[in-house]
Amino acid sequence: MNYKIAVIKGDGIGPEIVEASMKVLDKIGEKYNHTFDYTEVLAGGAAIDACDTPLPQETVDICKGSDAVLLGALGGPKWDNLPGDKRPEAGLLGIRKALGLFANLRPAMLFEELRDASPLKSEIIGDGLDVLVVRELTGDVYFGEKKKDGDFGASDLMNYTRPEVERIARVAFDSAKKRGGKVTSVDKANVLETSRFWRSVVLEIAREYPDVELDHLYVDNAAMQLVINPHQFDVILTGNLFGDILSDEASMLTGSIGMLPSASLGEGKFGMYEPIHGSAPDIAGQDKANPIATVLSVAMMLRYSLGLSDEADNVEDAVKKTLAQGYRTGDIAGDNSNVVGCVEMGEKIISNL
Amino acid sequence: MNYKIAVIKGDGIGPEIVEASMKVLDKIGEKYNHTFDYTEVLAGGAAIDACDTPLPQETVDICKGSDAVLLGALGGPKWDNLPGDKRPEAGLLGIRKALGLFANLRPAMLFEELRDASPLKSEIIGDGLDVLVVRELTGDVYFGEKKKDGDFGASDLMNYTRPEVERIARVAFDSAKKRGGKVTSVDKANVLETSRFWRSVVLEIAREYPDVELDHLYVDNAAMQLVINPHQFDVILTGNLFGDILSDEASMLTGSIGMLPSASLGEGKFGMYEPIHGSAPDIAGQDKANPIATVLSVAMMLRYSLGLSDEADNVEDAVKKTLAQGYRTGDIAGDNSNVVGCVEMGEKIISNL
Ligand SMILES: CC(C)[C@H](C(=O)O)[C@@H](O)C(=O)O
Ligand SMILES: CC(C)[C@H](C(=O)O)[C@@H](O)C(=O)O
Repeated sequence: MNYKIAVIKGDGIGPEIVEASMKVLDKIGEKYNHTFDYTEVLAGGAAIDACDTPLPQETVDICKGSDAVLLGALGGPKWDNLPGDKRPEAGLLGIRKALGLFANLRPAMLFEELRDASPLKSEIIGDGLDVLVVRELTGDVYFGEKKKDGDFGASDLMNYTRPEVERIARVAFDSAKKRGGKVTSVDKANVLETSRFWRSVVLEIAREYPDVELDHLYVDNAAMQLVINPHQFDVILTGNLFGDILSDEASMLTGSIGMLPSASLGEGKFGMYEPIHGSAPDIAGQDKANPIATVLSVAMMLRYSLGLSDEADNVEDAVKKTLAQGYRTGDIAGDNSNVVGCVEMGEKIISNL
Repeated sequence: MNYKIAVIKGDGIGPEIVEASMKVLDKIGEKYNHTFDYTEVLAGGAAIDACDTPLPQETVDICKGSDAVLLGALGGPKWDNLPGDKRPEAGLLGIRKALGLFANLRPAMLFEELRDASPLKSEIIGDGLDVLVVRELTGDVYFGEKKKDGDFGASDLMNYTRPEVERIARVAFDSAKKRGGKVTSVDKANVLETSRFWRSVVLEIAREYPDVELDHLYVDNAAMQLVINPHQFDVILTGNLFGDILSDEASMLTGSIGMLPSASLGEGKFGMYEPIHGSAPDIAGQDKANPIATVLSVAMMLRYSLGLSDEADNVEDAVKKTLAQGYRTGDIAGDNSNVVGCVEMGEKIISNL
């Protein structure tokens, strides 16, 4: 089969980690007899520099005409002082909205080999960590009306509508069915009308999934529970703002933030795939970046958008093998590791495919 | 001197922990020659049961006529299915607003004796944890206009005005001057207009405090940094919603949540003091509760509202001594501790005054 992939290399270490990951994908193509046609498009800082906008219309059009989008990382200090709507982040928020990517899947899992990198005590980690955060991505206070009242004040509207909550809830329940069978919906229903509404819709959708367990936590409590008892979680279902905070907290607890992929999905199979870490401008261009989160994002792309789950398993297994062989980029290096650069890490993974 | 204290014992373990703390206060009165006149008033579940409202007007009036308010804890499963505005939480939010308590001070500190209770690795804790979260308490999406659009959706308005941000920023900078000299303002300025405004006002106020260092973090990053590098923080300044989440996360990291007090202050010296833990209905009435967070809230009351800092120091020292003597309530008991109940813990503290 022939697949069209739109590629946004992005800023900082973006190009290096994406190039390493494309080579992994090419090798998968060879092995399983697929071709991947890449079209490179611009967003974020690179687009600001080239076209004076963080999200050119051409980028949106080409992404829409593709089977999936692979993204490196956007942003950097160079563009930090631009006005809000001209900054790289505006490109990221814009592309999520333009492509209708309402479901952000962020697995926070611990790699057994990197267990020591977790900030949590060993007793708490126990036999590992494996939480999937399902974050709504195109609604909430992120996209509600914004107002600036001169020098006197400012506001953002937090809101959710029924169809928005229904569809993200279904993604969470469907995911839980394939995992541990439990959804924890996180809100602030003791204070927010939006959260009370969110909770009522989640309760309705839950009836379609009698075999999935559901519970509800307030966001302040969820932030605490993640730290003291992460094993109680299987799938965390939450809105855009709380999901931003909790998914980052959860990833950090694994100690493996350079390893964690993410998928942003819409209706149907189309999706955008990116590592959860940032563009790390301080090490850009030095062949020091860790490509694993991007390689694992490619695995998610194979599984979710292209329906190639054997191929996805193969990539994930190759990453595990490479870690087991002791290869590490600088960010995850321990005392006895074999430190390699970004390019070599990619090659080692390919050799394990 | 004679001080008027309004007392809201509250629900669950509230009455026990407040009674133990009042005895500590009485002993301070004897020793330093003050009298504390208590007026007991109702709020939360107890008020719902007695007066069918979580916040009777009489409570507000009596609190306003007092020098300070001491609060136990509000809420419990008994009242969980009431509509939003009839629930115990509505009493808490209502009293904060009615009394103009815009500044919530939540110290997250580690008690050396309870170091092992922290979920974080020893390397990360290092020589202790000591962060003061200064949370804005009467604005933000908590108090913005709430709307319900029938079955179709709901919204809450997030907003801040200049005077609201100015006054809470001053509290944070003033606190930092007396502590480590650093303020970290937490917002989501890459997405929210409210946060961009917040940040601009904080920057203005910072000019009045040239000797205090200021930096800014996005809330998702702050949630991560707390876990991997809490020592970078001295005072965290943030809004109502982010403050709710981050202060709970920070307290949990200390492992000493049953020990942590809080103060909610307005203009002037008036304030409300309460433990940060909840009403723990499962152990209510069994003399098992830990009164220390409430006793330390009394110390904050002595210091902030009554201007009695020697007396405050005395209470804090007595708590430390009691811990050093090995006395522990069940929630913080270790292998070699001397387990005592709520009443006895109060008595041990008094004997160390
Ligand atoms: C860069 C920022 C706008 C973005 C977000 O808040 O969604 C990022 O934090 C993320 O989580 O992908
Ligand atoms: C009970 C709830 C309304 C309250 C809040 O969110 O402010 C609580 O979590 C707190 O932090 O005091």
